[in-house]
This record gives sequence, C-alpha cells and structure tokens, in this order.
Amino acid sequence: MKKIIACILAPLLIVLLPTALFAAAGDTVFVKSFGLMPNTRENAVKIIQTALDSCRTKKNPILFFEKGRYDFWPQYSIEKEYFESNTTEINPKRCPIWIYGFNNLTIDANGSDFIYHDRVQPFTIDQSQDITIKNVQIDWDIPLTAQASVKDTSTHYIDLQIDSTAYPFIIEKGKLFFTGEGWKSQWWGCMEFEKSSHMIAPQTGDDGVLGNKWEQYTAIQLSANTIRLNYNFTRKPAIGNILVMRHNERDHAGIFITQSKNIRLANIYLFQTAGLGILAQYSENLDYSNIQVVPNAAKGRYFSGHDDGCHFSNCKGQILIDHCSFTGLMDDPINVHGTAVQIIEKKSATELLCRFMHEQSIGMVWAQAGDTVGFINHTSMQTKTYGIVASFTALNTTDFIIRFIENIADGIAVKDALENISWTPHITIRNSVFGVNRARGILISTPGRVIVEDNIFESSGSAILIAGDANQWFETGAVKDVLIQRNVFKDACLTSMYQFCEAIISIDPEIPVIDKNTPFHRNIVITNNQFNPYDYPVLYAKSVEGLTFSNNTITRSNRFTPFHPNKNMFSLLACKKVTIANNQLNGNVLGKNILLQKMTIKDISIQPAKSLAVEQR
Amino acid sequence: MKKIIACILAPLLIVLLPTALFAAAGDTVFVKSFGLMPNTRENAVKIIQTALDSCRTKKNPILFFEKGRYDFWPQYSIEKEYFESNTTEINPKRCPIWIYGFNNLTIDANGSDFIYHDRVQPFTIDQSQDITIKNVQIDWDIPLTAQASVKDTSTHYIDLQIDSTAYPFIIEKGKLFFTGEGWKSQWWGCMEFEKSSHMIAPQTGDDGVLGNKWEQYTAIQLSANTIRLNYNFTRKPAIGNILVMRHNERDHAGIFITQSKNIRLANIYLFQTAGLGILAQYSENLDYSNIQVVPNAAKGRYFSGHDDGCHFSNCKGQILIDHCSFTGLMDDPINVHGTAVQIIEKKSATELLCRFMHEQSIGMVWAQAGDTVGFINHTSMQTKTYGIVASFTALNTTDFIIRFIENIADGIAVKDALENISWTPHITIRNSVFGVNRARGILISTPGRVIVEDNIFESSGSAILIAGDANQWFETGAVKDVLIQRNVFKDACLTSMYQFCEAIISIDPEIPVIDKNTPFHRNIVITNNQFNPYDYPVLYAKSVEGLTFSNNTITRSNRFTPFHPNKNMFSLLACKKVTIANNQLNGNVLGKNILLQKMTIKDISIQPAKSLAVEQR
Repeated sequence: MKKIIACILAPLLIVLLPTALFAAAGDTVFVKSFGLMPNTRENAVKIIQTALDSCRTKKNPILFFEKGRYDFWPQYSIEKEYFESNTTEINPKRCPIWIYGFNNLTIDANGSDFIYHDRVQPFTIDQSQDITIKNVQIDWDIPLTAQASVKDTSTHYIDLQIDSTAYPFIIEKGKLFFTGEGWKSQWWGCMEFEKSSHMIAPQTGDDGVLGNKWEQYTAIQLSANTIRLNYNFTRKPAIGNILVMRHNERDHAGIFITQSKNIRLANIYLFQTAGLGILAQYSENLDYSNIQVVPNAAKGRYFSGHDDGCHFSNCKGQILIDHCSFTGLMDDPINVHGTAVQIIEKKSATELLCRFMHEQSIGMVWAQAGDTVGFINHTSMQTKTYGIVASFTALNTTDFIIRFIENIADGIAVKDALENISWTPHITIRNSVFGVNRARGILISTPGRVIVEDNIFESSGSAILIAGDANQWFETGAVKDVLIQRNVFKDACLTSMYQFCEAIISIDPEIPVIDKNTPFHRNIVITNNQFNPYDYPVLYAKSVEGLTFSNNTITRSNRFTPFHPNKNMFSLLACKKVTIANNQLNGNVLGKNILLQKMTIKDISIQPAKSLAVEQR
Repeated sequence: MKKIIACILAPLLIVLLPTALFAAAGDTVFVKSFGLMPNTRENAVKIIQTALDSCRTKKNPILFFEKGRYDFWPQYSIEKEYFESNTTEINPKRCPIWIYGFNNLTIDANGSDFIYHDRVQPFTIDQSQDITIKNVQIDWDIPLTAQASVKDTSTHYIDLQIDSTAYPFIIEKGKLFFTGEGWKSQWWGCMEFEKSSHMIAPQTGDDGVLGNKWEQYTAIQLSANTIRLNYNFTRKPAIGNILVMRHNERDHAGIFITQSKNIRLANIYLFQTAGLGILAQYSENLDYSNIQVVPNAAKGRYFSGHDDGCHFSNCKGQILIDHCSFTGLMDDPINVHGTAVQIIEKKSATELLCRFMHEQSIGMVWAQAGDTVGFINHTSMQTKTYGIVASFTALNTTDFIIRFIENIADGIAVKDALENISWTPHITIRNSVFGVNRARGILISTPGRVIVEDNIFESSGSAILIAGDANQWFETGAVKDVLIQRNVFKDACLTSMYQFCEAIISIDPEIPVIDKNTPFHRNIVITNNQFNPYDYPVLYAKSVEGLTFSNNTITRSNRFTPFHPNKNMFSLLACKKVTIANNQLNGNVLGKNILLQKMTIKDISIQPAKSLAVEQR
C-alpha cells in the first residue's frame, strides 16, 4: 500500500513542482529574455553562458527554458582539463553548460530536448552546492554508438543495414568507421539485441556476438545503407536482429559532478552520452529521481548511453536513486566505488609515493588533508591499519606523494593499496528498473549503508555485484551493511556472460590469498525478494561475514536454456555466519543446492534444514 | 592555334607547379607536422591557425596539405565584423582560415577536399598581398541550398522527394524548413532543373516555377524522404525534374578578399558557399584560373554556389578570369561593379553626408583620402564633375561624411550619386564556361578595359549584361572600353526571364531621364562571336556611344519555343555611332531587324545595307 501511494504521489509532485517554482518568480531567469528561443537549431551555448552568469546575481536563481529543442555545439563551450574517473583521459573536456562555483541554482528545462553535437559533456557541476537540474531530455542527433540490422548471413559474410543518416559511416581499407560531427571512429565491438523483445540475445554478451577473431573482417559497401562484412565468422547473429556497434572513446560524461555537494537531478532522460552517464566523484549528497537512461524509442534505437548509467567514484554522504530506469546501456547501470591506489615507494616514515593503477582513473585529487586512509594488504585484501592525511601532492597524472600525520605502520609495503575511507557514501537504490544492459546491474563497493529495494532487474549479466579489488580494477571497497529487499529479479538476468557474473547476486571480491578467518565483506542481507531464474546460480558469495538470504521466493522460468558453468543455486566461499532461511522454492527450480568452499557446514544455518543439498569441497 | 597551345600548356603548368614549389622546400610549412592529418573528420581550424602563424616566420611560405579530406567547423574560427558587398549583414563573420596581414603566402591544398560545416567563410584574405590559394575543393556535407525530385503533381498538390540526409528538413505549421549544422531556414524560392539535361526548365526563371502565391502551400510529410505540398499551384514542374530549393541567407562569401593586392586563385572547385562565391572588394590585381564553381556531381547535385560566382565590388588594377567554369549558381557567375552612394545632405562647401542605399552593401570604407570621386546626376546618370577625397568618416553602417579637397561644384544636389573612380578595375574574362545558372552570365559595370573572349555561354538569362544605375541597385559604373570577341552564345541563353534580360547581350543602364546626346556607356565592340539563338533578341543597347556589332555569326536554333516579348534581333535606344556590319545570319534566324528608339538611322551604320529591317519609333 505504501508503495502504491508513493507511485500516485510521485507524478503529483512533478505536477505540483512548477507551481512551487513560480512562487519565487522574482528569482527566475528566463533564457528567452537573452534572445534564445527553442527550435532555432542555433548553437545555444553562448547565450546560456550569459544567462548562467545572470543567475549569479540572484538569491535563489532558477534558469528557466521555454519548452522546445535546443542545440549545443562544441563552439563556445568551456574547455577545461578534468580527470574523470573511469573515463579515457582526453583533455580538455568540452563543457557547454558549466556550473562552476554556484551555491544554489536550479536549471529547469521545462521538458525541453537538449540536442548535443560532437563529443561534449552536456552538464558539468564543479565546486558547487545545492544544485538542481530537472525536466530535460538529453540526446544527440548523431550518437557516439551505432546500430545495424542483420539482413543476411552466410558462411562467408554478414550483410548489415545501417541507417547512414543516423549513423554515417565510411569504409577505409576494408574496415568500418563511423563518422560524425567532428570525429571518425573505428568499430571495435558489438552487442546483439533481439528485434522484437529488445533483449540482448542470450549467451552472447562479452563472449562474442561474431565469434573469435571477428575483427579480421573486410567490409564492402553494397548500397548507401548496406554493407557486407566478409569473413568466416565463427558465430553469426540472427537475421533481423539488431547489432549495437560500439565505437568511439568514453571521453565525456553526460552529467559530470565533481567536488560538489547537495546535487539533485530529477526528471531527466539521458538518451545518449559520450561516455559514462552521470559521473559523480569527490562529491557529497546526491539525489537522483526519475532519471531515465533508456533508448530513444522515437528514433528506433536499441542502445542508450555509451557506457555506465550512474557512476559514483569516491563520493560521500547520502546517495539516493529513486524511480530511475536503465536500459540499453553498454556498461553497468550503477557503479559505486572508491579508487584504490598502489604504494610504489616508501619515501619516508610518513610519506608514500603512490600511483593510480587504472589508466582510465588518473589525475584526481585522491585525498585531502584530514582524510582517513585505510592501508590494504594486497594479497589478503585486509585493511591493516588507518592513517590521517597531512598532505597530498600530485607529481603527474598517475603518481603522487601522500604524507600522513603519524608514522606509517610497519608491514605496509610496496604493492599494498590505499583506500580513502573519508570518501565512501551511503546509498539507497529503490523503485527503479534495471532493464537490458550490457554487463551487470548494480556494482557496489562502499562501506556505507547500502539499501537496494523495490527494484526490478532484467540485467543480462549479474543483477548485483559486490566486488572490491586492489589488484586489477582498483575499485574499492569492502561493504559493511547491505540490505537487498523486495526486489524482483526476472528471468532475463544472467542470460549472457560478462566478467564477475557468478550468479544473479554475485559477491565476488578479488582476493589473491583468501583467509576465511578475516572476511572481506560484512553484513549483507538479501530478503523478501523474488527470483525467477531459468538457470542454476542465484547467489555467489566469497569472503563475507554475516550473510543472510531469507524469505525470498525463487520460481523457475523455462524461457531460456540453462548454460551457466556454475551448477549451484548457492555458492559460498570462505564465508562466516551465513543464514539461508525461509525461502520459497517454486516449480522445478534448478539445483536447490549449496556448494561450500573453504568453509564448513558450521558456518551456515539453513532453514528448513535439508531444504537444500549441501556439497562441500 | 594559339588557343589550342594554351589548352595544352595549361594542364602542363599545373603538373609542373609542384616541382617548382618543392624547389623552395625550406619555406614549406607542412600541416601534418602540426599533427593534422587528412581524413580524421576532426575540426582542422585550430591547427591550421597555428600552422598559418608559423608561416609568418618564413620568407616565401607555402602551407602544404597532405591530400585528403579536412573538416572545418565554426569552433575556433576567427570571428570578425566584415561588411561584405552584396551580402546580408549578419555579423560577426566566421573565418576558419583567416589570412590577415600577410605579405607573400601560398596555400597549396594539394587537391584536398575542404569540407565546411554550418555557416562559415572558408577563406578570408584581409589586408594581405601576394597570396596564392590553389588545388582545393570546397564543399559542405549539408549545403545551404537544398534540392528535391518532383514525384507527382495534381491539381491540389505536388509531391517531392528530398534526401533527408543531404538536406535535412522539418515541417512546422505546414511550412517547410531545412535544418543543418547550427541553423534552421525556411524555404523561400526555387528553380526547376531538367533531370537529364541539367538545364533550367525553359520559361521558368524568376517568373516562377510554382506560379503565383505558391508560398500559400501547406506541407505534410508522407515518409522520411517524401513531402506533399498541398495547394492549387498555378504552374507545376514536370514530374521527374529537380527543384533546387532556395533557403538561408547569403551571409558569408566562399572566398572573401578585402583590402588586398596581387591575389592568385588557381585550381579551385567551389561546390558550395554560404553566400557569394568569391567576393573581392577594395582589392587590386586578382588572377583567377581554373576556378570551377559547379555542382558536385558525385553528390547528385544540380546546384553549386548559393549566389554569385565571382563578385568584384570596388576593385582596381587588373582582374583575370581564365579557364573557369560556372554552373548551377543561384545568381550571376560574374559581377564587376562599383558601389554608388547617394547624397543625403550637403553639410558644407566641401562636405557631404552620404548613404549606402542597398541594404546588402553597407558598412564599407567607401573611399580613402586621395581617391577620385565622380558626381553623378541621378536623373540623367551623367557624371557632372569629379572631386578628390580629403577624408572619409563613417557615422554608422549606412551613413558617412565625405570631405573633398576643393569645394563641391554647384549643381550637385541631394539624391545625386557618387562613384569612386579610383576603385574601378580592368578585367579580362576568357576561356571560360558560363553554364546553366539562375539569372545572367556576366555583369559588367566598370570604366576600365574589359575583354570578354573565347568563352562559352549557356546562361538561362542574358549572357552579358552591361548595366549601371544609381537609383535602385546602386551598382555603378559606365563602361568605356569593352571588347567581346570569339565567344559562343549557345541556344540555352535567354530561355528564362530575369531582371535586365532584354537580349542575349543586354546593355541596359537605368537612366530615369535619358538624353541621346550624352550617352552613358561608350566603346563597346562585339565581334567574331557565334550566336545560336532560338528567339529574337540578340542585342539590346541603351545609351551607348560607339557600339560595334561586327563579324558575328548568328545561327538559328530550333531547340526551344520563342517567348521573349522583345521581337527584335537588335534593339537600340538613344545610342550614337553604332555599326552593325558583316555579320553572318544563318538559317531562318528570327527577326533580322532593328528597332531604333530615341535615335535615327543616321546614328547607325549597317553593312551590308538593308541586310536588316529597320523600325524606328
């Protein structure tokens, strides 16, 4: 009942909000009064900058747009060097709408379409607080991702139809390049979507749509909108299906939030981006409601954003994701993590030379004086001790010197990792839809309070991944308090393989030398959810102390053919204090079993007893 | 024979030139060494600016491009206020390649394609001398003019097919708008081209392709590439024919040359512009060879530039047009004129307040100290006297104060006009093709020596117009020495009506009160030409003293239906010292007659006598 009321109230609130705005009409800055009307197709950048400047003279400024289409080009965009987390380091970033140094600002696009051109970052929020952006549809006429329809396949070729207006392309030396407004980009990967269901074709994913060595194709143009890929592809997509063709770098976020606080995003369609969707780093208190990262159906698209949906790197405070939707993304809808860095050299008793280890996460101001840092043993992944930062000094984009107030504890050595504990958020993700996307649904690596509730998952990989590593991706950190409840995990989950997809819920930290006595993650409760698996693995958990899987309903789906190598409903590895209790297993659900590794039956409570077959290795 | 040798030598010279260039390789600045390679589709503007700066350090700099495609966007373009003659005053102008203050520079694009985006001015040459630009194809992906194919016509509608990739369009409130990179532009005019011949459909021109009040149409979209124009059009184009649909302002030249000297343009394709093709104003010594202002056949286009081909406004020195070609233009291929200004007020014995009278020709520095200015009586169009300029002071974009060294002669009054005699060029136009274009072929209004020889004309209006007026267009001035020889005027000439199209060669100054005793133009010789008319009027001449039409061959064509209201082969009005001699009239050429107005038979010598019927009104 509570949920139903919320559903009724939500749209009401949206309707009521404009009224509230007009009450403060004196602070409203009308974009039209600066000479910018919608639908002119002219470059809006310069005038919006002027209008934004004018907002600085108001107490509670609301930048208000007449409803319609606005176009944004790189021309006049603020160009600024930003080191964006999990983003390719191509600088400067182009920022058509640059919200810098604002305290209190609302941008109300009033349901307008903001159409971007070339590789740009639609919104940038830097060193600002109490910012609201709302009621806008963000898109590109020529997106940074392409799609094609499979017309024919044979032993020697695949014929593709590509709308050359939406996805202009050329063939150079037999290779397919997409071209657009200021760029040319070679095709480097693809995903296969079923034409009618818009689902990712089962058992494709990162295991390959076109089989091994597909890059050895030779393309020829058959007509204006048709190409032939000549090659003996070891796997072929189904005729009529849609290939989403990945190209271009991920070099700008859709909305980039850095060193900011109290940011509210509401009623935003993000149909396309040039990289991650909404990227927040080193920011605090983020409230996203009704964010729709979905394909633009009116344009016949199967893809939405270029990479992740909402990415939180080294944030703190409270994050809320409410009534959002994510479909057609080319990477995870939500990823919450810190950035681990590696110790390269101990410079003195208090000083370490450290390095950003992932090439797409460099150059950030990793810590500030006063931050608490955890020292992580890189083989056990255990946090050995903590230190307080005295100073941070960047040497270049990858290396920095960090000095601590007190002497660094013995045993902290080169190759060990540092985690910035001060920049770890609480997060609530609710009432949202995680539709068909490449990769997983939600990635969580934060010690803050995590609530994932009342969501629907149809992710083609794992629905939820709780990872943590300091050896490969360097995305920390260990969780301490996770509640996953009242979600629906539909049968589309785990229909394709990607990295870290051991089960529908996969708790899979990367620990080189695992020790059952010192688990990495803690306190994870999965309760009152509905699972609808067609395959075996429901839960995979490694190195967790305090894991509860209770009162869930698991109902078999016969929609897909099981294929996962993991034939266990539950796989537990080196966990402690596990409870699997009062779950309802309907139909001929597969497995009904638990595999225990590096732990014993004493570490687990199963109720009713013997409701699951237990295997121990 | 001489002509044949020239034809053989011309391509040889083109081949030999690069060798000559490499001899001075030390002064060659390679664009690639600044990191700009062809075919990347990236915005070339910024790097080319850097490379141009580097040219300033060389003695004989040659800016050299690797062959390929380069793209130019408004971003980073120099933005400068230019008042361009016969161009809509929208400022600032965007100048991606801005050649300013150079003495000696060659830009050798090495056969590259320069593709422009949005409304920009591809090349700007300002306050420079000894500049060469060569070996480049200038085009737009999305041009500022559109075209459509006529699919169907009925009493109530016309259906058009428009390639929405090349010519993106939208329909708003029933009206057709074209959209592009940074603009939206309503359709305001059209020309009908025959599908196979690429000719302008006879008897269309400015008299209307769609009949009267065609603008009252209501458009609806039938499919992605098809629209219906609902209206009872009083004229309908032929099914299968091509409509060139005019929209957008003429706000940037293709190549703009101002206050410069010794400019050489060679081997340039100008497939499209955002206004006039090559506009030179207040510049001296201009040498254009192998300039091809033609439709880009590879893109299936019937149109080339947006307006005129080569426009010379207030230039001086020697102008040479050699081995050029003009087809598919939406206005005159060549126009040579000065700009007359009107006297608004006599401020003192030496000072006049004057005004630019045509809204598209304003804001120019009309005169400099030391220039010679003619004072023209606006009713008789006679130059009454001359004065030397002491100073020029602009008051705003239309009005200025001009002060003379000596007192202004009596009788010079308000509404009379001024002509700047110091800025009048000699011009030679030879070995060129004036193909199918809207409007006329060549417009000449200069007192300098004019030679028009060895050209081919297929203009749909008059082939050559010698005008001059100071009451409507304010394009001066009277000619004094014109030789038109060895040209071929093909039967396509004068197949449609436009302003000032009285005959294939039309000498038609606008003189409110004409006086035979003081002719406006002088010394025009038309000799050894071939005319191939299907209609009556070959020559119309008003107010000329010294007019010779001799040794020409006139051969009837039966390709088109005569329609011109002027039923005289020769029409002479208020001329003196006319000779029409030794012309060969072949076939059943129409008329074989002369109409004399405001003059008598004594003013003309006809040889052989009685070879033409003479009518006198």
